[in-house]
Amino acid sequence: MNTTQQLYNTYQNKMSRIADIRAASAVLQWDQETYLPKGSANFRGQQISTLSELAHGLFSEDDLGHLLNELSAKDDLSSVQKKAVERTLEDYNKNKKYTSSFVRALSEQINKTFHSWIEERKQASFSIYQKDLETLVQLKKEETGILGYKEHPYDALLDEFEKGATVSLLDKTFSNLLPPLKVLFQKLTASAQVDDAFLFQHFPEKEQWAWGMHLIKELHFDFERGRQDKSEHPFSTSFSPQDVRITTRIDENDFGNMTWSCIHEAGHALYEQGLPVEHYGLPLGEACSYSIHESQSRLWENNVGRSKGFWKHWYPQLQARFPAQFNSVPLDSFYKGINKVQPSLVRTEADEISYHFHVFIRYELEKRLIEGSLSTNDIPAFWNLQYKTYLGVDVPDDKRGCLQDVHWSHGSFGYFPTYSLGSFYAAQFYAKAAKEMIGLDEQIAAGKTLPLLEWLRANIHKHGRYFTSEELCKEVTGEGLNPIHFMKYVEQKYEAIYF
Amino acid sequence: MNTTQQLYNTYQNKMSRIADIRAASAVLQWDQETYLPKGSANFRGQQISTLSELAHGLFSEDDLGHLLNELSAKDDLSSVQKKAVERTLEDYNKNKKYTSSFVRALSEQINKTFHSWIEERKQASFSIYQKDLETLVQLKKEETGILGYKEHPYDALLDEFEKGATVSLLDKTFSNLLPPLKVLFQKLTASAQVDDAFLFQHFPEKEQWAWGMHLIKELHFDFERGRQDKSEHPFSTSFSPQDVRITTRIDENDFGNMTWSCIHEAGHALYEQGLPVEHYGLPLGEACSYSIHESQSRLWENNVGRSKGFWKHWYPQLQARFPAQFNSVPLDSFYKGINKVQPSLVRTEADEISYHFHVFIRYELEKRLIEGSLSTNDIPAFWNLQYKTYLGVDVPDDKRGCLQDVHWSHGSFGYFPTYSLGSFYAAQFYAKAAKEMIGLDEQIAAGKTLPLLEWLRANIHKHGRYFTSEELCKEVTGEGLNPIHFMKYVEQKYEAIYF
Repeated sequence: MNTTQQLYNTYQNKMSRIADIRAASAVLQWDQETYLPKGSANFRGQQISTLSELAHGLFSEDDLGHLLNELSAKDDLSSVQKKAVERTLEDYNKNKKYTSSFVRALSEQINKTFHSWIEERKQASFSIYQKDLETLVQLKKEETGILGYKEHPYDALLDEFEKGATVSLLDKTFSNLLPPLKVLFQKLTASAQVDDAFLFQHFPEKEQWAWGMHLIKELHFDFERGRQDKSEHPFSTSFSPQDVRITTRIDENDFGNMTWSCIHEAGHALYEQGLPVEHYGLPLGEACSYSIHESQSRLWENNVGRSKGFWKHWYPQLQARFPAQFNSVPLDSFYKGINKVQPSLVRTEADEISYHFHVFIRYELEKRLIEGSLSTNDIPAFWNLQYKTYLGVDVPDDKRGCLQDVHWSHGSFGYFPTYSLGSFYAAQFYAKAAKEMIGLDEQIAAGKTLPLLEWLRANIHKHGRYFTSEELCKEVTGEGLNPIHFMKYVEQKYEAIYF
Repeated sequence: MNTTQQLYNTYQNKMSRIADIRAASAVLQWDQETYLPKGSANFRGQQISTLSELAHGLFSEDDLGHLLNELSAKDDLSSVQKKAVERTLEDYNKNKKYTSSFVRALSEQINKTFHSWIEERKQASFSIYQKDLETLVQLKKEETGILGYKEHPYDALLDEFEKGATVSLLDKTFSNLLPPLKVLFQKLTASAQVDDAFLFQHFPEKEQWAWGMHLIKELHFDFERGRQDKSEHPFSTSFSPQDVRITTRIDENDFGNMTWSCIHEAGHALYEQGLPVEHYGLPLGEACSYSIHESQSRLWENNVGRSKGFWKHWYPQLQARFPAQFNSVPLDSFYKGINKVQPSLVRTEADEISYHFHVFIRYELEKRLIEGSLSTNDIPAFWNLQYKTYLGVDVPDDKRGCLQDVHWSHGSFGYFPTYSLGSFYAAQFYAKAAKEMIGLDEQIAAGKTLPLLEWLRANIHKHGRYFTSEELCKEVTGEGLNPIHFMKYVEQKYEAIYF
């Protein structure tokens, strides 16, 4: 073994150790959402903070910085190793920009704002929360200075969630897409009423759970290397590619609540289970980005899980499990019902099309908050006006309005756009897969999704964080992100359903 | 705040941080035994090791040593603070004796021996395991040199589990107790056959689980600050006094398997839930010792949970839950059946009396291994002869013989005696409680166990690790450990049952 390889091993061991601590923290958080007794929250919070600080401390050590710089200068690393070191050094340098006093101040303010959000949401009022949020926004503005940016301060925050994303790029993307999307949306909602009442019958919890478990198992979620539990809000998390966990929730009076959330979270999990295990702890063992992660969950949830072919295979099984609820509903009506397009107040309940208006409104709002052209005081008014403009709805109260999402209270400004980008990538990837694979739609209609998963594994999962989102998109589809694929997808699909 | 108090706060913060990491490690281990997917063991093992090393590293830092020594010299600490610092310094100095190379060697050998135990146990053979165990015993001998001892090398290992325990003390304890215990045992087993066949009918899993949950709730296990789950081997663990978890297992054809293990683990948990939360991370927030821990589990399991009064209250409820199994069994027969005394091969299945022969055999064996008068090669022969001598049974194979316990494969030489000490302390504490409290037996017979729990909280739990076991025993009962109380307890109880 030569010296470079010894250095690389040292680097890998250090990163593996940091990954162990981060994984432990993730286990504690998973437990907090699934099994933690009610009265245990205080110590649990403290234990998670201690682990976060430890991981942050180890990832800020000067020794690691020296090692990374030394490795960067070596010319006898493999290209994969070179990329791993390069990505880690980027992360390291970014991490080093933060003083520990700023990290603590931000973390404390997030904690405060989060609890104020929990309380204010119950009252559906905004006033106390607004004060805490204002302080948090000021800190996030400070953070844009710490991180630095070229054009727009919001770029610094966007880059945290989507490397390379900028206001100028997102403005362009949204302004190209939203007008035709709005035309389609208005056309669809102006047409005949879609009946989806059959989704809101009574579906016993136990049977729903069994159905969801069966479904994700058939979609090749690997229960030897993962599990599903229940939690208040569905999420996915990973402690290694060999231990990927998802959660779901069950509403006995809303069939859609669990089913597509199971598929969505399983989509995230299939990605995590497909990451190269030999790069545990290194960027190459991590997901590419938030938007690519979301592309995987949305591809399975929507492009596959709300397609007609998928239900051609699955609907007879669903009817057999819930005969009283579905035997009188033909496949076509079911398919139309699960793809009902309608104006809505709540993002997480929105259809595939109007979802992006919800995201865009948040994007516009965050951009203004960070550049200082909108004050936190003005959020409700801005929010309500935008909802009227884009979705045609009157917001009855802040609970179903600007208090509906947790993201700001977590300090996650710049996160929302990755949801839309995820849909756009999903459509582009699916279009490419359909072109490259022979009979993809037929396979799905026959209940065979393994070939698609294998395609995603070979083209996307295996790369880890070797590429940026944009680079990966080019590598896979031959072009950068192009929302035209999403537009084509929704036009074809919904024209066929509605007209 | 004066300087001493500032120093004390620094000490408390450092210890709290170490406790956080240990708690995180305990969460990962709990998850490993309850919910971990099969294919995730490797990374989980690595993650737990990383946390252990981190905690060990922080607890070995020179800064902490300086701080502890500085605090020890202060005369303006409260007596409670003084004791906390004193105990921590003892732990610290002990911990510092180990070189990290020895810790690693021991940990690797334990891992090897444990896996060899898993394998060899399946084959019920001893040969490969013996080689690994031999190496482990050599390391444990080395450890006695590292730790130091006055009289017998085994004393150094005993002290790890029970501060102050020595061969000379234990020899005396056992040699006083075992002869009369053997007389009683022979007398009981020579008398009429006890029928306990009704315990081995079919008891559906779901109903057993509901029964066990009800039972421990009524025994005041606090589900707001703890939970029960299932695992292959029942255990209790604690992440803070606000998060104490126990597990159980259910055998549908053996009623006793779950019921008394629930009570036993709940006994451990009641202790942990009763530790002073304000001393989290400090010795005063920890259990006194292994034997005192075991005294709490055994007191609830046996002195309470196998008493006639307890079942006077509970048996009608049990009959109502399992009428087919118990309606034809009178309370007296039930009580006799659950206290059946008989020779046995397996420690964990032994009755209250013969249990101590099982422990004594292991104690004698370990003592000889560590002093070098017995070789690991001779374990099966020694084991089988002792079982013939003390229990009158022929050991059919090593699986039900010297391969039955995991303890040696965990490197835990010196652990077994704490099981017997726990029973002895339990009897002594219960006798004292019965003397101090008015109508304890009547309260239990009325289903009221809160007064007893409150007595244990006030006399035992609240002290944490302020006292050693022996000191605590004197504080609570006015005398040091005296197994005469245990002998009296079993004589009175079993004479009444059998004659």
